[in-house]
Amino acid sequence: MSQLTHTAESGEARMVDVGDKSDSRREARAEAFITMTPETLKLVQDNGLKKGDVLSVARIAGIQAAKQCGTMIPLCHPLMLNFIGVDFEIQSEHNRIRIETCCRLSGKTGVEMEALTAASVAALTVFDMCKAADKTMRIDGIRVLEKSGGKSGHYLVED
Amino acid sequence: MSQLTHTAESGEARMVDVGDKSDSRREARAEAFITMTPETLKLVQDNGLKKGDVLSVARIAGIQAAKQCGTMIPLCHPLMLNFIGVDFEIQSEHNRIRIETCCRLSGKTGVEMEALTAASVAALTVFDMCKAADKTMRIDGIRVLEKSGGKSGHYLVED
Amino acid sequence: MSQLTHTAESGEARMVDVGDKSDSRREARAEAFITMTPETLKLVQDNGLKKGDVLSVARIAGIQAAKQCGTMIPLCHPLMLNFIGVDFEIQSEHNRIRIETCCRLSGKTGVEMEALTAASVAALTVFDMCKAADKTMRIDGIRVLEKSGGKSGHYLVED
Amino acid sequence: MSQLTHTAESGEARMVDVGDKSDSRREARAEAFITMTPETLKLVQDNGLKKGDVLSVARIAGIQAAKQCGTMIPLCHPLMLNFIGVDFEIQSEHNRIRIETCCRLSGKTGVEMEALTAASVAALTVFDMCKAADKTMRIDGIRVLEKSGGKSGHYLVED
Amino acid sequence: MSQLTHTAESGEARMVDVGDKSDSRREARAEAFITMTPETLKLVQDNGLKKGDVLSVARIAGIQAAKQCGTMIPLCHPLMLNFIGVDFEIQSEHNRIRIETCCRLSGKTGVEMEALTAASVAALTVFDMCKAADKTMRIDGIRVLEKSGGKSGHYLVED
Amino acid sequence: MSQLTHTAESGEARMVDVGDKSDSRREARAEAFITMTPETLKLVQDNGLKKGDVLSVARIAGIQAAKQCGTMIPLCHPLMLNFIGVDFEIQSEHNRIRIETCCRLSGKTGVEMEALTAASVAALTVFDMCKAADKTMRIDGIRVLEKSGGKSGHYLVED
Repeated sequence: MSQLTHTAESGEARMVDVGDKSDSRREARAEAFITMTPETLKLVQDNGLKKGDVLSVARIAGIQAAKQCGTMIPLCHPLMLNFIGVDFEIQSEHNRIRIETCCRLSGKTGVEMEALTAASVAALTVFDMCKAADKTMRIDGIRVLEKSGGKSGHYLVED
Repeated sequence: MSQLTHTAESGEARMVDVGDKSDSRREARAEAFITMTPETLKLVQDNGLKKGDVLSVARIAGIQAAKQCGTMIPLCHPLMLNFIGVDFEIQSEHNRIRIETCCRLSGKTGVEMEALTAASVAALTVFDMCKAADKTMRIDGIRVLEKSGGKSGHYLVED
Repeated sequence: MSQLTHTAESGEARMVDVGDKSDSRREARAEAFITMTPETLKLVQDNGLKKGDVLSVARIAGIQAAKQCGTMIPLCHPLMLNFIGVDFEIQSEHNRIRIETCCRLSGKTGVEMEALTAASVAALTVFDMCKAADKTMRIDGIRVLEKSGGKSGHYLVED
Repeated sequence: MSQLTHTAESGEARMVDVGDKSDSRREARAEAFITMTPETLKLVQDNGLKKGDVLSVARIAGIQAAKQCGTMIPLCHPLMLNFIGVDFEIQSEHNRIRIETCCRLSGKTGVEMEALTAASVAALTVFDMCKAADKTMRIDGIRVLEKSGGKSGHYLVED
Repeated sequence: MSQLTHTAESGEARMVDVGDKSDSRREARAEAFITMTPETLKLVQDNGLKKGDVLSVARIAGIQAAKQCGTMIPLCHPLMLNFIGVDFEIQSEHNRIRIETCCRLSGKTGVEMEALTAASVAALTVFDMCKAADKTMRIDGIRVLEKSGGKSGHYLVED
Repeated sequence: MSQLTHTAESGEARMVDVGDKSDSRREARAEAFITMTPETLKLVQDNGLKKGDVLSVARIAGIQAAKQCGTMIPLCHPLMLNFIGVDFEIQSEHNRIRIETCCRLSGKTGVEMEALTAASVAALTVFDMCKAADKTMRIDGIRVLEKSGGKSGHYLVED
């Protein structure tokens, strides 16, 4: 497909009509990274050794954001997701946390926006909870890892 | 400050009490980039020559998201922002769009999370509107550019 | 003032920065009408003689909508209203219900949008509750009746 | 049908149980008008010749409001719309803008409230963006144009 | 079942994947009580003899909250309820109001959380409207009365 | 005070106008209990020894709900809380978890509804996460413990 599906010929924004799409099992996985100083990363890690609340809170924020994606992104459809997963991996060697999300739906539209939104908001929540210690944090690499279900077929990122 | 302000000694998440902070004029600027194929970028640009709706919609989404930041990020305070700005620059030489946001408040807490949220959601909205043409897009470089007002003083990113 | 304050020179939407406006007591009153068949109006009235729930529900919906105005209208500011009032008058001679709303704020921006939103959503709620009986209903005359507070001075509709 | 479906015998508000309704393709179209001074209308039009942001923003606001209809109107059901369209026609000869909306659903309840809500909020957004230039604007003629799908059959307004 | 379905082996919160559950007709009923002084209860009752607005408002609040349950409770799924009912019984002999709620869904997950949320928020709304008269009110006995549909079978509280 | 402040003489619901109230430091503390079988309580406790996510998630849900109180309870005012705290105590001897919440504001209205809402939604979240193991859970004793600030003076529950 080589054109913007979300704008009309005349350039105006439009919602895609999904009425003729069939319900299918759909899944999307997305990724994000948040990089911080080694000292800040250690604070998150030590917190994790206790009760893990920084990443706990970020997980909940990501899950909640995925549910709100249809409200937050103007031309997204409201969806009833079957599942939202948000996982974290502390990559000390890169001074960063990797976030991987997964959304699943039995429905008419792909769920990559939901997975991307979950990853973004989880990263923003880590930022919020660490910002007093480190203003130089950076969120990078937000992208779709894999997408399946629906007419457009299987997509797997090439690394 | 060298500790996480958003977790208690025992590791649990907690909201920072801003009751003793004084109201001051606060501003924060943040940045994000979305990289895409040259073909996709051209579609956005051509759309912009007509009615600019991709970036128009992304601007509105970013503004709306900044207002919702206190709902979306669990330990953020609800705020009444004076101003939210979202601007775009198409950087064809880098196959990307640069997003810069600015939030202003007369109040008790910094607004960098609002600026970062506006930038992230504006980028996600561009992603949504272009995703049928390009699944390989990537959002990078979400960070605080500048922050002023409040006790912690002026912060300007060093590039 | 003869220009659109909510678009930049270049035509893009922008939020008005209210940071330099002073806090003042502000009030706005707005109006809306919903016209229906005499039979439908009688159903509302009879319901009102019992427990008044059509108008009760519409009142609550209007109050709730005024609180959400800053979320619903993209370039509105989030506000903390001091008061929202929604009143109804059944005007049998015109086969309609008149809705009058009043919003009050101690703050930096006018509240006419909040009053208009309350009136509109109250009218839509009456529509919803009566639509099985009457599909020909019509909502008209949504306008600002009066506005006070702030630099632009007192405005009173001329009838 | 000659009674209020949304109140019980005893007068209390109640939600209609749609569990026994069958899923069908449903569509509704609605209409609204916003009247303003010729000068204000010209400002909107000139803005449209540039980037069209007043109507762009109003379109997005209408789409977003349709998605929120089940939250905003107390006895409406939450729905997953397949499509929301919002179109504008500048009618200079009448000093007004005509708004037409269309909502589509595969589901159990009609979507006329969603179409009416989209039209109302799009009109309110135009009001918001023009109000500094013109306080005398008026929103009129909010009504259902057409409704199809479901047991109650096809409805087309008689003009 | 003897384990927490909403946490992973490693203790982290997780959403239950309902993708493999089949759609079925589900219903849940829940209950709550709010106890107050005889004087306060009489004020509610007298108000009820007029227009019943305390309980009217509480009913709407409960209905609206059930629709928002999937947003409010972090690991709940967003649902499209077919029906939400909220009823009140003034039990003067116990100085309390009994609230009974009922939610119905054709879908993949039970709706007891929706019924419990409706009951809780209806009770909180009564509290809000009476709190100037009585600060000693107490909400008790929030529980599931009955649940049907789905694989786990019929549950009826034993009193 | 011996009358309902939230209904007019004629019985209709009304929002209290807080425009003449002065800003003051206000605080409210509230309480709730959730009782479960000893087996279920042990599951929560064991989870707590690992990562504590049941109570972590419930804490976040309570904090988020307090921020949304002005939206959820129809006649509440939207507020900008300075602080929301949610704490848990496992009382094994009573087979229950005690929840205590605290809200603080510099503003015009009391915050007991926010504290009560936080406690209720935290309890509902525990219910949600444990309901597969135990359908007989019960939430009780939701009440205000203490309230200070504002004209009505200090209130402390007598036990």
